[in-house]
Amino acid sequence: MSTPTARIAELAAHTGHVVTVRGWVTHLRSSGKIAFIVMRDGTGLLQGVVVKNQVAPEVWARFSELTQEACIAITGEAKAEPRAPGGNEIQVSGLEVIGPSPLDYPIQPKEHGIEHLLDHRHFWLRSPRQVAIAKIRHEIEQAIHDFFYERGFLRVDTPLLTAAIGERSGLFSTEYFDEGNAYLAQTGQLYGEAAAAAFGKIYTFGPTFRAEKSKTRRHLTEFWMIEPEVAFNDTHDNMRLQEDLVSFLVERVLERRQAELAELERDVSKLKQVVRPFVRLDYSDAITLVRRKGSSAKWGDDLGAEDEALIVADYDRPVFVMNYPKEAKAFYMKENPADPRTVLCDDMLAPEGYGEIIGGSQREDDYDKLLHRIREEGLPEDAYGWYLDLRKYGTFPHAGFGLGLERTVGWICGTPHIREVIAFPRMMHRLRP
Amino acid sequence: MSTPTARIAELAAHTGHVVTVRGWVTHLRSSGKIAFIVMRDGTGLLQGVVVKNQVAPEVWARFSELTQEACIAITGEAKAEPRAPGGNEIQVSGLEVIGPSPLDYPIQPKEHGIEHLLDHRHFWLRSPRQVAIAKIRHEIEQAIHDFFYERGFLRVDTPLLTAAIGERSGLFSTEYFDEGNAYLAQTGQLYGEAAAAAFGKIYTFGPTFRAEKSKTRRHLTEFWMIEPEVAFNDTHDNMRLQEDLVSFLVERVLERRQAELAELERDVSKLKQVVRPFVRLDYSDAITLVRRKGSSAKWGDDLGAEDEALIVADYDRPVFVMNYPKEAKAFYMKENPADPRTVLCDDMLAPEGYGEIIGGSQREDDYDKLLHRIREEGLPEDAYGWYLDLRKYGTFPHAGFGLGLERTVGWICGTPHIREVIAFPRMMHRLRP
Repeated sequence: MSTPTARIAELAAHTGHVVTVRGWVTHLRSSGKIAFIVMRDGTGLLQGVVVKNQVAPEVWARFSELTQEACIAITGEAKAEPRAPGGNEIQVSGLEVIGPSPLDYPIQPKEHGIEHLLDHRHFWLRSPRQVAIAKIRHEIEQAIHDFFYERGFLRVDTPLLTAAIGERSGLFSTEYFDEGNAYLAQTGQLYGEAAAAAFGKIYTFGPTFRAEKSKTRRHLTEFWMIEPEVAFNDTHDNMRLQEDLVSFLVERVLERRQAELAELERDVSKLKQVVRPFVRLDYSDAITLVRRKGSSAKWGDDLGAEDEALIVADYDRPVFVMNYPKEAKAFYMKENPADPRTVLCDDMLAPEGYGEIIGGSQREDDYDKLLHRIREEGLPEDAYGWYLDLRKYGTFPHAGFGLGLERTVGWICGTPHIREVIAFPRMMHRLRP
Repeated sequence: MSTPTARIAELAAHTGHVVTVRGWVTHLRSSGKIAFIVMRDGTGLLQGVVVKNQVAPEVWARFSELTQEACIAITGEAKAEPRAPGGNEIQVSGLEVIGPSPLDYPIQPKEHGIEHLLDHRHFWLRSPRQVAIAKIRHEIEQAIHDFFYERGFLRVDTPLLTAAIGERSGLFSTEYFDEGNAYLAQTGQLYGEAAAAAFGKIYTFGPTFRAEKSKTRRHLTEFWMIEPEVAFNDTHDNMRLQEDLVSFLVERVLERRQAELAELERDVSKLKQVVRPFVRLDYSDAITLVRRKGSSAKWGDDLGAEDEALIVADYDRPVFVMNYPKEAKAFYMKENPADPRTVLCDDMLAPEGYGEIIGGSQREDDYDKLLHRIREEGLPEDAYGWYLDLRKYGTFPHAGFGLGLERTVGWICGTPHIREVIAFPRMMHRLRP
């Protein structure tokens, strides 16, 4: 074909000209004299109009052979057509089938069970809802990179194969040559702390792993996490950075992904309420609040999903729960000087019951206290030698946090189960495709 | 302290005002009446000047207790001072030690062996050379995200835990609940192909793994790869995208990371020659060329590092070697219609002998040919069912490539061994820190 090719998203630039567009058939309709092809190419939707007495007989004949998800090329004059799906139309003069599609295409225009959809994730990704989620995920990812780049943070890629480990349970392990077992990282934080001393302000952006037999809507075995770490930040600076980041992400999606939010029927009025400052609740006050609402949680417990829902129900924006009891949290969190039973930490709970999206803390910078906690937890001391070194030589106050990407995307998209917000989710019973 | 705090990179905005800067001591010098502290905070270098008869006795006394890498806070009036390391100076009125550093700090101002440096990578990262490399790496990473974002590519995060696998040897494996073994991904490409059919133009950006007993300067067991995949691109489109990307990255670093290139003493005249179009050499011509130069390589062989060096020696910019013999390359590459002994692929070789930084190909889109190749390679057919599905239902021409991040950063930095270009390298005998 000698006509120029175009992707659907670029068609506006070709209005009035003849172009070829390649993509996949999503809907077909014919009156016998005029036929409509709706097609997608990943960048948008396009309607092709075939008029029987205006095209060659073989073009009309080819239309009748089309099936859902056949890969085709259509050629004709492009025009804007607000009434057409996607707002674009082509008056078809040429039609070629690039790849036919048998009639048993696994995803039909009907309801499918979730296991069937997940078994055919490679096709399910093509549905308008999944495309919208994927675009919002990407927007959030790019916004995260832009946020940190503009603020002078250095991105650091921390290792996935590790000997030293942040939390003990739920580890995937693999043989590592003659070095014994390597463990898939559950966090990049410890490495991020070393990097913060070298580069000042850093963030990580990568996959993390939990070999946990959780089957909740908020758990994946493989998920992506963003972990900033800042030298000389205290717990208050840390929370300010968190609310700056999260409000930036929400604003960016509201600004640039309106069409996708509409496709998902997201109530954007809820997202518009996500403005700084977020709510700050001391852990002890949070316990009082949930007990008043009927929870049996008592001081010392970590907060479960139900308690979190009780807390956020009173607020229209994210809530920080601060300063948990030491025993409910990880060994590396700094003891709270004002109440040594607690640590200088925060969980950020998303509104509308989407649960925890961030866990953060000021880190323990006292060598002796950290060593004591490592021993108390029964962690392998030699694996933490380099981590203790950071407190032995020129220790420094610092703080950081981990933002769960899928939980954040799920909340902003209004998607209750995070298995939909990653291309190929990994869960306890799900390793394929 | 009630004075404002500042990071060194922000000091220009505080000229003439009293500020507090926190960081780590790198150099100390005293004449008995005047003392100089050079400190770093990850954002830059700063010189503090302490004049004995202008400060309180306890401040002068504290100076004499300082050691390398002690964490300190200095307070005083900031000014620009071109003769000072980093171009910034503070007339010290206050000095506090936040974290002292014992005299046996593991990295001293002398030559250390590479194993010692790698054992103390958490400290080695702080050296000016390592900071420069890390900043250039980040610039390249951000540039990659910007390049694809601006061109309408969708970022897709492909799974690391996989059942289906791209290449067979050198796999790390881990037990995956009741699903048998999972393998750590060597590529995200197969998933990227499914995503290209859903979203049109995609790229991945993530870690990949090779459990290979390689000990060359170009191999890591864990490294980062960027893998674009584009529906309807052929092998020529694919190479154009590669040269667009690589020239964009080089330009961006030249434009924004001059200071870091200077720190590394990189010959930037070589980088300025990286302009499009790159050289295109057919594999057969490449064989002729290296044989003429004395290589014993013969038609059918893959090209080794020595052959690659012979090829690029004649050119001042990257070289594509195209259309390798089928048996030298992976099963998913499309048969070359013009010569079915070969496939439609390319390797991009960096100039100056830095070797292959990209491998790309048009993908086999013919169901029967692909199935034949999977059987020929003895791959587990059932694991590739979903991948074959992409050819069964609406198959489409498409092409993509993988850019090795560490090799690209190593080349642009002029760093012969890629172990220096990632924060915590993983090699056969290196799992810590």
